[in-house]
Amino acid sequence: MTKKIAIIGASGYTGAELIRLISTHPGLEIAALAANSKAGMRMAQVFPFLRHLDLPDLVTVDQIDFSQIDLAFCALPHKTSQEVIRELPKSLKIVDLSADFRLRDPEVYKQWYGNDHAAVEMQGEAVYGLTEFYRDEIKSARLVAGTGCNAATGQFTLRPLIEAGVIGLDDIILDMKCAVSGAGRSLKENLLHAELSEGYNAYAVGGKHRHLGEFDQEFSKLAGREVKIQFTPHLLPVNRGILSTGYVSGDAQEVYDTMVAAYAGEPFIQVLPFGEVPSTHDVRGSNFVHIGVTGDRIAGRAIVVTVLDNLCKGSSGQALQNANLMLGLDETAGLMGAALFP
Amino acid sequence: MTKKIAIIGASGYTGAELIRLISTHPGLEIAALAANSKAGMRMAQVFPFLRHLDLPDLVTVDQIDFSQIDLAFCALPHKTSQEVIRELPKSLKIVDLSADFRLRDPEVYKQWYGNDHAAVEMQGEAVYGLTEFYRDEIKSARLVAGTGCNAATGQFTLRPLIEAGVIGLDDIILDMKCAVSGAGRSLKENLLHAELSEGYNAYAVGGKHRHLGEFDQEFSKLAGREVKIQFTPHLLPVNRGILSTGYVSGDAQEVYDTMVAAYAGEPFIQVLPFGEVPSTHDVRGSNFVHIGVTGDRIAGRAIVVTVLDNLCKGSSGQALQNANLMLGLDETAGLMGAALFP
Amino acid sequence: MTKKIAIIGASGYTGAELIRLISTHPGLEIAALAANSKAGMRMAQVFPFLRHLDLPDLVTVDQIDFSQIDLAFCALPHKTSQEVIRELPKSLKIVDLSADFRLRDPEVYKQWYGNDHAAVEMQGEAVYGLTEFYRDEIKSARLVAGTGCNAATGQFTLRPLIEAGVIGLDDIILDMKCAVSGAGRSLKENLLHAELSEGYNAYAVGGKHRHLGEFDQEFSKLAGREVKIQFTPHLLPVNRGILSTGYVSGDAQEVYDTMVAAYAGEPFIQVLPFGEVPSTHDVRGSNFVHIGVTGDRIAGRAIVVTVLDNLCKGSSGQALQNANLMLGLDETAGLMGAALFP
Amino acid sequence: MTKKIAIIGASGYTGAELIRLISTHPGLEIAALAANSKAGMRMAQVFPFLRHLDLPDLVTVDQIDFSQIDLAFCALPHKTSQEVIRELPKSLKIVDLSADFRLRDPEVYKQWYGNDHAAVEMQGEAVYGLTEFYRDEIKSARLVAGTGCNAATGQFTLRPLIEAGVIGLDDIILDMKCAVSGAGRSLKENLLHAELSEGYNAYAVGGKHRHLGEFDQEFSKLAGREVKIQFTPHLLPVNRGILSTGYVSGDAQEVYDTMVAAYAGEPFIQVLPFGEVPSTHDVRGSNFVHIGVTGDRIAGRAIVVTVLDNLCKGSSGQALQNANLMLGLDETAGLMGAALFP
Repeated sequence: MTKKIAIIGASGYTGAELIRLISTHPGLEIAALAANSKAGMRMAQVFPFLRHLDLPDLVTVDQIDFSQIDLAFCALPHKTSQEVIRELPKSLKIVDLSADFRLRDPEVYKQWYGNDHAAVEMQGEAVYGLTEFYRDEIKSARLVAGTGCNAATGQFTLRPLIEAGVIGLDDIILDMKCAVSGAGRSLKENLLHAELSEGYNAYAVGGKHRHLGEFDQEFSKLAGREVKIQFTPHLLPVNRGILSTGYVSGDAQEVYDTMVAAYAGEPFIQVLPFGEVPSTHDVRGSNFVHIGVTGDRIAGRAIVVTVLDNLCKGSSGQALQNANLMLGLDETAGLMGAALFP
Repeated sequence: MTKKIAIIGASGYTGAELIRLISTHPGLEIAALAANSKAGMRMAQVFPFLRHLDLPDLVTVDQIDFSQIDLAFCALPHKTSQEVIRELPKSLKIVDLSADFRLRDPEVYKQWYGNDHAAVEMQGEAVYGLTEFYRDEIKSARLVAGTGCNAATGQFTLRPLIEAGVIGLDDIILDMKCAVSGAGRSLKENLLHAELSEGYNAYAVGGKHRHLGEFDQEFSKLAGREVKIQFTPHLLPVNRGILSTGYVSGDAQEVYDTMVAAYAGEPFIQVLPFGEVPSTHDVRGSNFVHIGVTGDRIAGRAIVVTVLDNLCKGSSGQALQNANLMLGLDETAGLMGAALFP
Repeated sequence: MTKKIAIIGASGYTGAELIRLISTHPGLEIAALAANSKAGMRMAQVFPFLRHLDLPDLVTVDQIDFSQIDLAFCALPHKTSQEVIRELPKSLKIVDLSADFRLRDPEVYKQWYGNDHAAVEMQGEAVYGLTEFYRDEIKSARLVAGTGCNAATGQFTLRPLIEAGVIGLDDIILDMKCAVSGAGRSLKENLLHAELSEGYNAYAVGGKHRHLGEFDQEFSKLAGREVKIQFTPHLLPVNRGILSTGYVSGDAQEVYDTMVAAYAGEPFIQVLPFGEVPSTHDVRGSNFVHIGVTGDRIAGRAIVVTVLDNLCKGSSGQALQNANLMLGLDETAGLMGAALFP
Repeated sequence: MTKKIAIIGASGYTGAELIRLISTHPGLEIAALAANSKAGMRMAQVFPFLRHLDLPDLVTVDQIDFSQIDLAFCALPHKTSQEVIRELPKSLKIVDLSADFRLRDPEVYKQWYGNDHAAVEMQGEAVYGLTEFYRDEIKSARLVAGTGCNAATGQFTLRPLIEAGVIGLDDIILDMKCAVSGAGRSLKENLLHAELSEGYNAYAVGGKHRHLGEFDQEFSKLAGREVKIQFTPHLLPVNRGILSTGYVSGDAQEVYDTMVAAYAGEPFIQVLPFGEVPSTHDVRGSNFVHIGVTGDRIAGRAIVVTVLDNLCKGSSGQALQNANLMLGLDETAGLMGAALFP
């Protein structure tokens, strides 16, 4: 039987990506779309690429009758998200795509995001949404917190290695390259085509990016001790795709074998043959993750390169994967589309 | 029951696009993939974005047992295509994506393509593959000739108008802007990223582009007299998407009404509200066509802008739409995916 | 002896382009830079690519001592420009890059720009800044109005042909393709990299673009009768470069000969051999214009393709060329740099 | 008095970039242009963006009368370069842009490039062309070997720090992001616009890139011991610009102070204020280098980000800077142009 879903925050990129994915999903029906600032508009006006779909018009959150909804996706900015989710029915299943329920410690949340958390009581209930590692908890969760797109990429690289104890914990570096859609529809000069295309730059250098909060929390928990990595994001002139180049100490073959074992049977994770290197071109628009492990000419060093689509597997695809689990549907439903190439 | 298909010429862009589309098609199974120059390779090596699929390895055409195949897509270059198709079993259903069976008159073929046609006897049997206008013939056809991507775009603009007699026939101009994937994987300096990105140019100016052969044939047939249009293609630094700006004389409102009536009920054709203008951004990766009609400040002039994805609706998507019809499947199967945005 | 110049509106793209060009000009010194909203900032903060230059800090217009200035460039938005220029010393030489003094008839100005002109009395004195056609007037002008970038491109295509009477006047079409920097640093969703790259669209279709005011004024004056052309701009995902595809009726060879004769001796205008087609790649970052003339398979039709860099020859380069003339310097000083390729 | 120069290998990107730079140089005249495969052609045919220049036609190397030449630039592929240079007059000043004379040890050359060196006797005479560090030797050199573009970028990051002994030598990582023009006009599928744009990937991962030969040679010489760094290049969908993210152990403030001191007075090197991060957008088309130093949240770690234009400062600009020195001209002549932005 078809499940009814609502999308709150349907006028941004992650909301649009959810609609794209769900438009060919066999078991979901989009019953409500909310975007307070654009309430009253048709989706064909906001996103003409969805023109062929028979979608409900945009409404405000207050206008949704949640008693008819099986699950709500919340694709709002952080801080707004917690304020909205706090007021939703307590029995409603929710997949939140914001940063608001990723960090378990309210102090850590405040440190990275600057504000007191407005729904502290719900943080205990939230399950961290990195499906491959929290699958069982997600199946029975009411509230799932989608991971950051950089945070997801880095964890696909490092979690199996930290857990297996095959790499050093004090010299990990993730040099990350991120597509611009991760910044959303923000109107900033450096995101204009004229200023972004044909060049690139690092940002938040030196340990300032908020996704470090997730890395610290998850890696320290896995290792049973504090783990702090170096993480440098770079903004690239492409629209979709994150590539993380991970530098670790350890035996490259052991690193490779650990990855192969960890991801055996995972429908969306592809570990490439040893020594091959993935490309973001090959995952654009898809829910797949490609991982390559290479040794270095310097003994005892390995390089792990991981790619995924920040809007899909890094955000809306992951959210749908989690929703499938929460609703008892096939985990891969609506998500098996191949990447767009070229 | 699942139908078995083969793709001949699976190492090019249109072949890869066919696999992408068919990978989520409920009624088709890819039983054979041929590419003579890369026979023996796995598709994951040729197109790593298809790595997650369980596909047959590449073979030569000769190695395919066509008795097990319900329909073959032929995604070869023109001239090669006719030589290969000539040798295939006469009972095999074929969708050809090349230019070889588009032109009914062998003399016209030779004029535009330079060589004598090697399978003249089969030209009579070939049905022109512009689905929306040859649907019934395609359903019962054995051999369907996919249209050129520019030719498709221009015909979506002009066919209903010529047929209805609402525009002048002697001053039609199509100014077309084409994505680079239309040129295929050809290794030419002007197709290198360094030389193509960040700029654009016209080419084949003055009536030299081969797709004019299709325009002449189809428009003259529709009008019952010779129709010759002006057509200028431009090469743009994007990978997918054709935009045709059509300049016609006629009453803009009548032009609009004609388009709305002609495409009513078509699952893939979206005529925008009068005065709105489409964008290639909204059809990238999809099988949809968006058409906008606008009046001009000069009375008696109308502008019709049409966009589609050259690799999908302009080539492989159209081919699959035709194959669905030929095999008695739902015409839209595998083709309802929304565009990728952003 | 070095001339001192000021740039009013130095925090936009055309202001930055002026500084880039003047930075290697042998006869000019940048004595003052104004940008009211960013007064007090260093240029290295606003445009880090100018970091190596020893430039004055940004000030407000009021803070400039114009008695020390030989010529001011005014690179402000239209409407603001007329209000600022009205208050400047009446003896100051000014090159205005906005639309405010391009249209001689205040009624026509109001029709296209929507507001009453605030400096009507100065419009009579303003000289239209298309250097190659108003060179003598510019030499002795106090106030020069830079042309629109599309308007410049179209006039390079059509002025010699209209003046020579070698083309029909009632069926001229300019299909124009424009780089995004022409829209300036405006913060709009459709100018974001994520929404602009990888696609394109027409806009202001049907005779709605403001540069038509210039076309009407200039072409009608040249022809001695009213001339109204069709003009469709398209927004392309590149940063610099306009390409105008002009469709005219007339003898192609005569059209070509007229162009060659008209531009003989012009330092910045390159008429290509007959039948060759120019590319925006070849003029990016330069003050050069490339023009190609081609005949059509339809007798009596010619296609004229013109390319230039909208920020340079279409705006700031043209402005500097005019300033050179107004200051008695070599017209080409600071402007002979070759395009950037690749 | 004007010096006469020749460019051997004038049909590639570095040859074209040399012509672009020299076209506004006050003291150089291009007396001969060679490109064996395109001998007989005009430069306007090979590079239409140079159409406005009065250049000699392309000839073969043999056709050049070197007695009339003061200095030759050799912009050929490696291996070819050594074979050509070996036959040139022994008194001719030469700036080689290839890899052939960068490595002093013929065994190391063979290890990285695979072939025996054909001009071993000239390697002793060649001076390494990183101007800022070999200025005096270059002034009196006859043969200067231009550095690799990645090698230049990495050395601007690390040389002052290794020389001053302020960083650890055993844990240096350079994560480099490179524009595609560095690959030249090679006709390869992965360099096509359709396959390169909208995505990116690492390559030569694990210590396989040839520029490591230069790093090893120069850093070990500076340190007085063997230094081996980790270096991972990434191919980005832009045409110009290298960004190197350097991870080093050391006190960030000391690292910064060392950089400021090392580059004081250098006309082309801009060290940004502490904590600021450079962008390749700001050096595109220019000979400038921007360097940013940042501390990390992990004590004792610093990140140094360096950007330059691979074709200009990383190749042809560096070559011209060296030629200026060798000919007794102003070192900065022809090189002070600001970057192209946007």
